[in-house]
Amino acid sequence: MARWQPGAQERLVVAAVDLFTEQGYDATTVAEIAARAGVTRSTFFRYFSDKREVLVAGQATLSRLLAEGIAQAPQGASPLEAVAAGLERASAAMGPVNRDLGPRLKAAIAASAELQERDALKNIGLADAMRDALSARGVPDPTAHLAAELGVLAFKRGYARWSEGERDDATGLAPHALAALEELRTAAGTLG
Amino acid sequence: MARWQPGAQERLVVAAVDLFTEQGYDATTVAEIAARAGVTRSTFFRYFSDKREVLVAGQATLSRLLAEGIAQAPQGASPLEAVAAGLERASAAMGPVNRDLGPRLKAAIAASAELQERDALKNIGLADAMRDALSARGVPDPTAHLAAELGVLAFKRGYARWSEGERDDATGLAPHALAALEELRTAAGTLG
Repeated sequence: MARWQPGAQERLVVAAVDLFTEQGYDATTVAEIAARAGVTRSTFFRYFSDKREVLVAGQATLSRLLAEGIAQAPQGASPLEAVAAGLERASAAMGPVNRDLGPRLKAAIAASAELQERDALKNIGLADAMRDALSARGVPDPTAHLAAELGVLAFKRGYARWSEGERDDATGLAPHALAALEELRTAAGTLG
Repeated sequence: MARWQPGAQERLVVAAVDLFTEQGYDATTVAEIAARAGVTRSTFFRYFSDKREVLVAGQATLSRLLAEGIAQAPQGASPLEAVAAGLERASAAMGPVNRDLGPRLKAAIAASAELQERDALKNIGLADAMRDALSARGVPDPTAHLAAELGVLAFKRGYARWSEGERDDATGLAPHALAALEELRTAAGTLG
Protein backbone atom coordinates (compact mmCIF):
# COMPACT_ATOMS: atom_id res chain seq x y z
CA MET A 1 0.00 0.00 0.00
CA ALA A 2 1.26 3.47 -0.82
CA ARG A 3 2.22 5.57 2.15
CA TRP A 4 0.33 8.52 0.76
CA GLN A 5 -2.24 8.74 -1.96
CA PRO A 6 -4.27 11.63 -3.25
CA GLY A 7 -7.84 11.45 -2.03
CA ALA A 8 -7.00 9.17 0.89
CA GLN A 9 -9.12 11.20 3.32
CA GLU A 10 -12.14 11.07 1.07
CA ARG A 11 -11.71 7.33 0.49
CA LEU A 12 -11.47 6.78 4.24
CA VAL A 13 -14.76 8.61 4.77
CA VAL A 14 -16.52 6.59 2.09
CA ALA A 15 -15.04 3.31 3.42
CA ALA A 16 -16.08 4.13 6.98
CA VAL A 17 -19.64 5.06 6.06
CA ASP A 18 -19.96 1.91 3.94
CA LEU A 19 -18.70 -0.32 6.76
CA PHE A 20 -20.86 1.41 9.39
CA THR A 21 -23.86 0.82 7.14
CA GLU A 22 -22.97 -2.80 6.32
CA GLN A 23 -21.95 -4.12 9.74
CA GLY A 24 -22.72 -1.37 12.25
CA TYR A 25 -20.59 1.29 13.85
CA ASP A 26 -19.63 -0.68 16.96
CA ALA A 27 -18.46 -3.71 14.98
CA THR A 28 -16.23 -1.69 12.65
CA THR A 29 -12.54 -1.24 13.42
CA VAL A 30 -10.06 1.36 12.24
CA ALA A 31 -8.04 -1.45 10.61
CA GLU A 32 -11.05 -2.47 8.52
CA ILE A 33 -11.73 1.11 7.45
CA ALA A 34 -8.09 1.57 6.42
CA ALA A 35 -8.04 -1.73 4.53
CA ARG A 36 -11.24 -0.91 2.65
CA ALA A 37 -9.80 2.48 1.69
CA GLY A 38 -6.54 0.85 0.59
CA VAL A 39 -4.33 2.68 3.08
CA THR A 40 -2.39 1.74 6.20
CA ARG A 41 -3.64 2.16 9.75
CA SER A 42 -1.07 4.89 10.33
CA THR A 43 -2.40 6.78 7.31
CA PHE A 44 -5.84 6.64 8.93
CA PHE A 45 -4.42 8.25 12.06
CA ARG A 46 -2.83 11.03 10.04
CA TYR A 47 -6.34 12.17 9.16
CA PHE A 48 -8.51 11.14 12.12
CA SER A 49 -8.03 10.62 15.85
CA ASP A 50 -10.57 7.75 15.94
CA LYS A 51 -13.31 6.10 13.89
CA ARG A 52 -15.97 8.41 15.20
CA GLU A 53 -14.21 11.51 13.89
CA VAL A 54 -14.51 10.19 10.34
CA LEU A 55 -18.20 11.03 10.47
CA VAL A 56 -17.58 14.70 11.10
CA ALA A 57 -14.68 15.08 8.66
CA GLY A 58 -14.88 18.55 7.25
CA GLN A 59 -16.46 20.20 10.29
CA ALA A 60 -13.51 22.59 10.64
CA THR A 61 -13.55 23.40 6.93
CA LEU A 62 -17.30 23.96 6.89
CA SER A 63 -17.08 26.21 9.96
CA ARG A 64 -14.35 28.28 8.33
CA LEU A 65 -16.23 28.63 5.03
CA LEU A 66 -19.51 29.56 6.73
CA ALA A 67 -17.70 32.22 8.76
CA GLU A 68 -15.79 33.55 5.74
CA GLY A 69 -18.95 33.84 3.67
CA ILE A 70 -20.69 35.73 6.48
CA ALA A 71 -17.68 38.03 7.00
CA GLN A 72 -17.47 38.86 3.31
CA ALA A 73 -21.17 39.57 2.74
CA PRO A 74 -21.89 43.16 1.62
CA GLN A 75 -21.87 45.71 4.42
CA GLY A 76 -25.60 46.42 4.30
CA ALA A 77 -26.61 42.74 4.25
CA SER A 78 -29.25 41.65 6.78
CA PRO A 79 -28.36 38.88 9.25
CA LEU A 80 -30.08 36.25 7.09
CA GLU A 81 -28.51 37.62 3.89
CA ALA A 82 -25.12 37.21 5.56
CA VAL A 83 -26.06 33.65 6.59
CA ALA A 84 -27.09 32.98 2.98
CA ALA A 85 -23.62 34.13 1.85
CA GLY A 86 -22.07 31.71 4.33
CA LEU A 87 -24.25 28.84 3.13
CA GLU A 88 -23.32 29.55 -0.49
CA ARG A 89 -19.63 29.50 0.28
CA ALA A 90 -19.78 26.32 2.36
CA SER A 91 -22.02 24.59 -0.20
CA ALA A 92 -19.36 25.06 -2.87
CA ALA A 93 -17.11 22.67 -0.93
CA MET A 94 -19.71 19.89 -1.09
CA GLY A 95 -19.31 17.74 -4.19
CA PRO A 96 -20.83 14.56 -5.65
CA VAL A 97 -19.14 12.34 -3.05
CA ASN A 98 -20.74 14.30 -0.20
CA ARG A 99 -24.04 14.04 -1.97
CA ASP A 100 -23.86 10.28 -2.58
CA LEU A 101 -22.81 9.74 1.02
CA GLY A 102 -25.90 11.49 2.43
CA PRO A 103 -28.40 8.62 2.77
CA ARG A 104 -25.81 6.13 4.12
CA LEU A 105 -24.44 8.76 6.50
CA LYS A 106 -27.97 9.38 7.76
CA ALA A 107 -28.58 5.66 8.26
CA ALA A 108 -25.27 5.17 10.10
CA ILE A 109 -26.00 8.10 12.43
CA ALA A 110 -29.58 6.93 13.07
CA ALA A 111 -28.26 3.52 14.13
CA SER A 112 -25.70 4.73 16.70
CA ALA A 113 -26.28 6.89 19.79
CA GLU A 114 -22.56 7.67 19.83
CA LEU A 115 -22.68 9.04 16.30
CA GLN A 116 -25.85 11.00 17.06
CA GLU A 117 -24.03 12.73 19.88
CA ARG A 118 -21.02 13.57 17.76
CA ASP A 119 -23.31 14.84 15.01
CA ALA A 120 -25.20 17.01 17.49
CA LEU A 121 -21.92 18.50 18.67
CA LYS A 122 -20.91 19.17 15.07
CA ASN A 123 -24.08 21.17 14.52
CA ILE A 124 -23.38 23.22 17.63
CA GLY A 125 -19.88 23.89 16.29
CA LEU A 126 -21.26 25.12 12.97
CA ALA A 127 -23.82 27.32 14.74
CA ASP A 128 -21.12 28.80 16.99
CA ALA A 129 -18.94 29.63 13.98
CA MET A 130 -21.82 31.46 12.30
CA ARG A 131 -22.87 33.20 15.49
CA ASP A 132 -19.33 34.51 16.08
CA ALA A 133 -19.09 35.72 12.48
CA LEU A 134 -22.44 37.51 12.79
CA SER A 135 -21.41 39.08 16.10
CA ALA A 136 -18.22 40.34 14.42
CA ARG A 137 -20.47 42.09 11.87
CA GLY A 138 -22.22 43.85 14.74
CA VAL A 139 -25.37 41.69 14.79
CA PRO A 140 -26.60 41.78 18.40
CA ASP A 141 -27.65 38.76 20.45
CA PRO A 142 -30.09 37.01 20.43
CA THR A 143 -30.51 37.86 16.73
CA ALA A 144 -27.05 36.46 15.94
CA HIS A 145 -27.84 33.30 17.92
CA LEU A 146 -31.15 32.82 16.15
CA ALA A 147 -29.80 33.57 12.66
CA ALA A 148 -27.00 31.04 13.24
CA GLU A 149 -29.52 28.36 14.28
CA LEU A 150 -31.54 29.06 11.15
CA GLY A 151 -28.34 28.69 9.16
CA VAL A 152 -27.67 25.24 10.59
CA LEU A 153 -31.28 24.16 10.04
CA ALA A 154 -31.13 25.40 6.44
CA PHE A 155 -27.84 23.60 5.81
CA LYS A 156 -29.22 20.32 7.25
CA ARG A 157 -32.56 20.55 5.47
CA GLY A 158 -30.95 21.60 2.20
CA TYR A 159 -28.37 18.81 2.42
CA ALA A 160 -31.07 16.22 3.13
CA ARG A 161 -33.10 17.31 0.13
CA TRP A 162 -30.06 17.49 -2.13
CA SER A 163 -28.71 14.08 -1.18
CA GLU A 164 -32.10 12.37 -1.28
CA GLY A 165 -33.20 14.05 -4.49
CA GLU A 166 -33.22 12.80 -8.06
CA ARG A 167 -29.80 11.58 -9.18
CA ASP A 168 -30.11 13.46 -12.48
CA ASP A 169 -30.42 16.77 -10.68
CA ALA A 170 -27.11 18.38 -11.63
CA THR A 171 -27.37 21.38 -9.27
CA GLY A 172 -25.08 21.68 -6.30
CA LEU A 173 -26.06 22.01 -2.65
CA ALA A 174 -26.27 25.82 -2.69
CA PRO A 175 -29.74 26.28 -4.24
CA HIS A 176 -31.20 23.66 -1.88
CA ALA A 177 -29.65 25.30 1.20
CA LEU A 178 -30.78 28.76 0.11
CA ALA A 179 -34.31 27.52 -0.63
CA ALA A 180 -34.44 25.94 2.82
CA LEU A 181 -33.26 29.20 4.39
CA GLU A 182 -35.94 31.11 2.52
CA GLU A 183 -38.58 28.66 3.78
CA LEU A 184 -37.37 29.16 7.34
CA ARG A 185 -37.45 32.95 6.87
CA THR A 186 -41.06 32.68 5.74
CA ALA A 187 -41.85 30.32 8.62
CA ALA A 188 -40.35 32.84 11.06
CA GLY A 189 -43.12 35.22 10.01
CA THR A 190 -45.81 32.71 11.02
CA LEU A 191 -44.62 31.92 14.54
CA GLY A 192 -47.17 34.29 16.10
CA MET B 1 -26.89 2.75 54.24
CA ALA B 2 -30.63 2.55 53.68
CA ARG B 3 -31.72 0.58 50.65
CA TRP B 4 -34.08 3.33 49.61
CA GLN B 5 -34.32 6.92 50.71
CA PRO B 6 -36.55 9.72 49.52
CA GLY B 7 -34.70 12.19 47.33
CA ALA B 8 -31.96 9.71 46.43
CA GLN B 9 -32.08 10.65 42.76
CA GLU B 10 -31.74 14.34 43.50
CA ARG B 11 -28.89 13.70 45.93
CA LEU B 12 -27.11 11.58 43.33
CA VAL B 13 -27.34 14.42 40.80
CA VAL B 14 -25.97 16.96 43.28
CA ALA B 15 -23.18 14.59 44.36
CA ALA B 16 -22.20 13.87 40.76
CA VAL B 17 -22.10 17.53 39.73
CA ASP B 18 -20.07 18.38 42.83
CA LEU B 19 -17.54 15.61 42.15
CA PHE B 20 -17.30 16.44 38.44
CA THR B 21 -16.57 20.05 39.39
CA GLU B 22 -14.07 19.17 42.14
CA GLN B 23 -12.04 16.45 40.45
CA GLY B 24 -13.20 16.27 36.85
CA TYR B 25 -15.64 14.03 35.04
CA ASP B 26 -13.12 11.41 33.90
CA ALA B 27 -11.67 10.94 37.39
CA THR B 28 -15.05 10.44 39.05
CA THR B 29 -16.43 6.93 39.57
CA VAL B 30 -19.97 5.73 40.15
CA ALA B 31 -18.86 4.38 43.54
CA GLU B 32 -17.70 7.85 44.60
CA ILE B 33 -20.95 9.46 43.47
CA ALA B 34 -23.00 6.88 45.37
CA ALA B 35 -20.86 7.30 48.52
CA ARG B 36 -21.16 11.08 48.42
CA ALA B 37 -24.93 10.79 48.06
CA GLY B 38 -25.08 8.28 50.93
CA VAL B 39 -26.51 5.42 48.86
CA THR B 40 -25.21 2.10 47.56
CA ARG B 41 -23.84 1.53 44.07
CA SER B 42 -26.87 -0.59 43.25
CA THR B 43 -29.14 2.29 44.23
CA PHE B 44 -27.22 4.45 41.74
CA PHE B 45 -27.96 1.93 39.00
CA ARG B 46 -31.65 1.93 39.84
CA TYR B 47 -31.72 5.55 38.68
CA PHE B 48 -28.99 5.84 36.03
CA SER B 49 -27.31 3.53 33.52
CA ASP B 50 -23.93 5.28 33.90
CA LYS B 51 -22.32 8.40 35.34
CA ARG B 52 -22.90 10.40 32.20
CA GLU B 53 -26.67 9.94 32.36
CA VAL B 54 -26.73 11.74 35.70
CA LEU B 55 -26.12 14.98 33.84
CA VAL B 56 -29.25 14.66 31.77
CA ALA B 57 -31.48 13.43 34.56
CA GLY B 58 -34.94 14.73 33.92
CA GLN B 59 -34.70 14.83 30.12
CA ALA B 60 -37.63 12.44 29.77
CA THR B 61 -39.70 14.39 32.31
CA LEU B 62 -38.91 17.73 30.67
CA SER B 63 -39.78 16.35 27.23
CA ARG B 64 -43.11 15.07 28.53
CA LEU B 65 -43.98 18.34 30.28
CA LEU B 66 -43.02 20.49 27.26
CA ALA B 67 -45.19 18.30 25.02
CA GLU B 68 -48.12 18.30 27.47
CA GLY B 69 -48.02 22.08 27.81
CA ILE B 70 -48.04 22.47 24.03
CA ALA B 71 -50.85 19.94 23.60
CA GLN B 72 -53.01 21.68 26.20
CA ALA B 73 -52.55 25.24 24.93
CA PRO B 74 -55.82 26.91 23.81
CA GLN B 75 -57.00 25.89 20.36
CA GLY B 76 -56.36 29.27 18.76
CA ALA B 77 -52.86 29.65 20.21
CA SER B 78 -50.08 30.55 17.75
CA PRO B 79 -47.07 28.18 17.49
CA LEU B 80 -45.03 30.37 19.85
CA GLU B 81 -47.92 30.74 22.29
CA ALA B 82 -48.12 26.96 22.41
CA VAL B 83 -44.35 26.77 22.98
CA ALA B 84 -44.75 29.30 25.80
CA ALA B 85 -47.34 27.04 27.41
CA GLY B 86 -44.88 24.16 27.17
CA LEU B 87 -42.10 26.22 28.74
CA GLU B 88 -44.36 27.28 31.59
CA ARG B 89 -45.32 23.73 32.35
CA ALA B 90 -41.76 22.39 32.21
CA SER B 91 -40.44 25.32 34.26
CA ALA B 92 -42.75 24.40 37.12
CA ALA B 93 -40.74 21.18 37.57
CA MET B 94 -37.51 23.12 38.11
CA GLY B 95 -36.93 23.97 41.76
CA PRO B 96 -34.21 25.55 43.90
CA VAL B 97 -31.93 22.51 43.56
CA ASN B 98 -32.01 22.80 39.76
CA ARG B 99 -31.30 26.47 40.06
CA ASP B 100 -28.35 26.09 42.43
CA LEU B 101 -26.90 23.36 40.25
CA GLY B 102 -26.81 25.59 37.16
CA PRO B 103 -23.36 27.18 37.36
CA ARG B 104 -21.62 23.95 38.46
CA LEU B 105 -23.45 21.98 35.79
CA LYS B 106 -22.31 24.49 33.20
CA ALA B 107 -18.69 24.26 34.40
CA ALA B 108 -18.74 20.46 34.40
CA ILE B 109 -20.15 20.34 30.85
CA ALA B 110 -17.68 22.96 29.59
CA ALA B 111 -14.80 20.83 30.90
CA SER B 112 -15.79 17.54 29.22
CA ALA B 113 -16.31 16.84 25.51
CA GLU B 114 -18.24 13.71 26.47
CA LEU B 115 -20.70 15.73 28.54
CA GLN B 116 -21.01 18.37 25.83
CA GLU B 117 -22.09 15.68 23.42
CA ARG B 118 -24.64 14.22 25.79
CA ASP B 119 -25.95 17.73 26.51
CA ALA B 120 -26.25 18.45 22.78
CA LEU B 121 -28.25 15.26 22.31
CA LYS B 122 -30.50 16.22 25.22
CA ASN B 123 -31.34 19.50 23.52
CA ILE B 124 -32.19 17.67 20.31
CA GLY B 125 -34.47 15.39 22.32
CA LEU B 126 -36.30 18.36 23.85
CA ALA B 127 -36.66 20.01 20.43
CA ASP B 128 -38.03 16.80 18.91
CA ALA B 129 -40.60 16.49 21.69
CA MET B 130 -41.82 20.04 21.08
CA ARG B 131 -41.79 19.64 17.32
CA ASP B 132 -43.90 16.48 17.51
CA ALA B 133 -46.36 18.19 19.87
CA LEU B 134 -46.63 21.17 17.52
CA SER B 135 -47.13 18.90 14.50
CA ALA B 136 -49.92 17.14 16.40
CA ARG B 137 -51.60 20.55 16.74
CA GLY B 138 -51.46 20.92 12.95
CA VAL B 139 -48.49 23.33 12.82
CA PRO B 140 -46.80 22.63 9.46
CA ASP B 141 -43.09 22.14 8.91
CA PRO B 142 -40.75 24.01 8.88
CA THR B 143 -42.70 26.28 11.26
CA ALA B 144 -42.96 23.48 13.84
CA HIS B 145 -39.25 22.76 13.51
CA LEU B 146 -38.34 26.43 13.93
CA ALA B 147 -40.74 27.06 16.83
CA ALA B 148 -39.31 24.01 18.63
CA GLU B 149 -35.74 25.29 18.18
CA LEU B 150 -36.81 28.66 19.58
CA GLY B 151 -38.34 26.83 22.52
CA VAL B 152 -35.04 25.06 23.30
CA LEU B 153 -33.07 28.30 22.96
CA ALA B 154 -35.53 30.08 25.25
CA PHE B 155 -35.34 27.31 27.84
CA LYS B 156 -31.51 27.33 27.78
CA ARG B 157 -31.20 31.12 27.86
CA GLY B 158 -33.87 31.47 30.53
CA TYR B 159 -32.28 28.75 32.67
CA ALA B 160 -28.85 30.37 32.37
CA ARG B 161 -30.21 33.74 33.49
CA TRP B 162 -32.25 32.23 36.29
CA SER B 163 -29.43 30.11 37.70
CA GLU B 164 -26.82 32.84 37.38
CA GLY B 165 -29.09 35.60 38.72
CA GLU B 166 -29.34 37.16 42.17
CA ARG B 167 -29.89 34.57 44.89
CA ASP B 168 -32.63 36.67 46.50
CA ASP B 169 -34.70 36.56 43.32
CA ALA B 170 -37.59 34.40 44.48
CA THR B 171 -39.18 33.92 41.06
CA GLY B 172 -39.11 30.53 39.39
CA LEU B 173 -37.72 29.66 35.99
CA ALA B 174 -40.94 30.37 34.07
CA PRO B 175 -40.72 34.19 33.81
CA HIS B 176 -37.09 33.94 32.68
CA ALA B 177 -37.89 31.34 30.02
CA LEU B 178 -40.89 33.31 28.78
CA ALA B 179 -38.88 36.55 28.66
CA ALA B 180 -36.18 34.77 26.64
CA LEU B 181 -38.83 33.44 24.24
CA GLU B 182 -40.25 36.93 23.82
CA GLU B 183 -36.75 38.27 23.03
CA LEU B 184 -36.29 35.55 20.42
CA ARG B 185 -39.69 36.37 18.92
CA THR B 186 -38.63 40.01 18.61
CA ALA B 187 -35.26 38.97 17.18
CA ALA B 188 -37.03 36.83 14.58
CA GLY B 189 -38.53 40.07 13.23
CA THR B 190 -35.06 41.56 12.65
CA LEU B 191 -33.49 38.70 10.70
CA GLY B 192 -34.03 40.48 7.37
